[in-house]
Amino acid sequence: MDYLNYTIKLARNGLGHVSPNPMVGAVLVKDDKIVGQGWHQKAGKDHAEIIALKQAGSKAVGATLYTNLEPCCHVGKTPPCTEAIINAGVRQVEVAMLDPNPRVYGKGKKNLEKAGIKVLVDQGNKAQELNEIFIKNIATGLPFITAKWAMTLDGKIAPSSGQRQWITTPAARQRGHWLRQEYDAILVGVNTIIKDDPQLTVRLENINPSHPIRIIIDSTGRTPLSSNIFKDSMPGKTIIATTEKMSLDTEQRYKILGAEVIRVSSVDNQVDLKTLFKLLAHRHVTSILIEGGNQILSSAFRNKLIDKVNIFIGPKVFGEAGALPPLDDSSSLKDWDIKQVEQIDNNILITAYPYN
Amino acid sequence: MDYLNYTIKLARNGLGHVSPNPMVGAVLVKDDKIVGQGWHQKAGKDHAEIIALKQAGSKAVGATLYTNLEPCCHVGKTPPCTEAIINAGVRQVEVAMLDPNPRVYGKGKKNLEKAGIKVLVDQGNKAQELNEIFIKNIATGLPFITAKWAMTLDGKIAPSSGQRQWITTPAARQRGHWLRQEYDAILVGVNTIIKDDPQLTVRLENINPSHPIRIIIDSTGRTPLSSNIFKDSMPGKTIIATTEKMSLDTEQRYKILGAEVIRVSSVDNQVDLKTLFKLLAHRHVTSILIEGGNQILSSAFRNKLIDKVNIFIGPKVFGEAGALPPLDDSSSLKDWDIKQVEQIDNNILITAYPYN
Repeated sequence: MDYLNYTIKLARNGLGHVSPNPMVGAVLVKDDKIVGQGWHQKAGKDHAEIIALKQAGSKAVGATLYTNLEPCCHVGKTPPCTEAIINAGVRQVEVAMLDPNPRVYGKGKKNLEKAGIKVLVDQGNKAQELNEIFIKNIATGLPFITAKWAMTLDGKIAPSSGQRQWITTPAARQRGHWLRQEYDAILVGVNTIIKDDPQLTVRLENINPSHPIRIIIDSTGRTPLSSNIFKDSMPGKTIIATTEKMSLDTEQRYKILGAEVIRVSSVDNQVDLKTLFKLLAHRHVTSILIEGGNQILSSAFRNKLIDKVNIFIGPKVFGEAGALPPLDDSSSLKDWDIKQVEQIDNNILITAYPYN
Repeated sequence: MDYLNYTIKLARNGLGHVSPNPMVGAVLVKDDKIVGQGWHQKAGKDHAEIIALKQAGSKAVGATLYTNLEPCCHVGKTPPCTEAIINAGVRQVEVAMLDPNPRVYGKGKKNLEKAGIKVLVDQGNKAQELNEIFIKNIATGLPFITAKWAMTLDGKIAPSSGQRQWITTPAARQRGHWLRQEYDAILVGVNTIIKDDPQLTVRLENINPSHPIRIIIDSTGRTPLSSNIFKDSMPGKTIIATTEKMSLDTEQRYKILGAEVIRVSSVDNQVDLKTLFKLLAHRHVTSILIEGGNQILSSAFRNKLIDKVNIFIGPKVFGEAGALPPLDDSSSLKDWDIKQVEQIDNNILITAYPYN
């Protein structure tokens, strides 16, 4: 059995719940038998290694610990894992990647080695992909940004009429809700609110989801007060990101409806997304899913703020001269790596990353 | 072993060589052993059943014949297969589809049954897909039309500059050459000739291809005389499809360069594609691959002339307001069935069919 690969599967159980922490899984193996396993479930709760050690009890003595991320050696919300591993009598540790956090990087490994524990690092792409959000956060201090759109076979996100029209089938839309669940925040432009009046919640059958923060980019205050996002029944939080151009009066109305209003500097009369993302990072927003429309996506591409795209292609052709493309006027990030292609019912989901 | 499925694989060996005939494979099985097999290699040559029977010789007595298409019962370029099957002493015949040709449909089956041979029809989608060109030809008398284009992740087929720029990587372009090989003709608009000056030949390593006919849609005669398609070294045949608006003088120049000029009625000052396709059907063109650009593709969509699309998506984003979409002003054929998605190197190939 590929135990390191298994730790990645365990870790993924934390998807959408561990922010701002990385997803981590751990397995304790003795005589080729699993004697303890676990995953990190929520920030502030036990790390994966601790759960596995508790489960193994005295069986941890002489065992090998597998984990997808280097064990921490600092006191955070919980005590250092290295200490617990040493105390439990673990003989060997295999990790799929070193922790990019400079407070841990290589130091967790050293601490263990000093105590006589052999440490193997089996650097793998899968472990990096699993924690791409965490890695970006640590490296840049900024949230990980994914752009998502759904387009027709002829590359259009909306018909020329501007009216809302489904492009994908329900199976793809359900997948879209699973995607939302992975992010701390969903971001759209005010035009999307005006045209589509979306709820921007996570709607999954038999699942009690954690709803991402809804962020509306609205430089002047055009978001209608009757929008769905302001409904009393709407779970989760709404932020309107605006500029100095929104009147105090309008700001007050949005606040009365329960939304938070954040004023950000403007660039070309638009909300400066980069500044906004920095502000959001300070509020522990580690990841943002941009769901459109055309103007916001273009602005994010133009400013090279995109870390990943998820493109749904639906079984439609609009074929109209005035139909909207996903991007306009944003000739940056030209070269991409198409990482994954899935067929979902009668739709396609493409996952791609920009080349640096 | 799924012998019917195996006949489809055998049949596919004829891909690009059997036009205007269908692709057919045949296997003779006795005591669960293959005693003869073959595929139809070229129009006028032996049918698949005959090749399999010749190979089996006396072992055909009491054997079961599997074939993806109902055996013919009429004298064409070769004698009827039913006669040969009966004479060889075959006991049972299993076919994956009845021949849609009204001269054969159900009659081949009856002829065999009259001679005491049991016939099973195991109607399957794969057999239909294999011979989609033949089925369309028989049903409508028209060529099967596939539209092919390569677009960026943001749905564009050319940058705003209009300059030629590769969207896909070489692996996808190689696949494009394999696609060309499957068609009797490749069709492009004159603007594609002016902008890209393509060769429109099949270029495959270590393969001596049969080059499809090149068809250029050019209503007034703007194809430059210096175009690659007119080069002496260019294999295969070129047809310029035009209207009454091309001068006799221009027609003469193209003829001197070896091209054939076909005048067709015009619709909205453009070549009437439907009329052209009818004319081409009379010349035994059973299938056409439309490779663009935007105007010709739009015209074909608008007139509902498309039977299939092959869309390559390359690892690029243009993101420019003026970049060209694959279609413009052609809001027909809105609903599609996405049949297949393949990842080819860093590209995607989508195969889709319009709903009727």
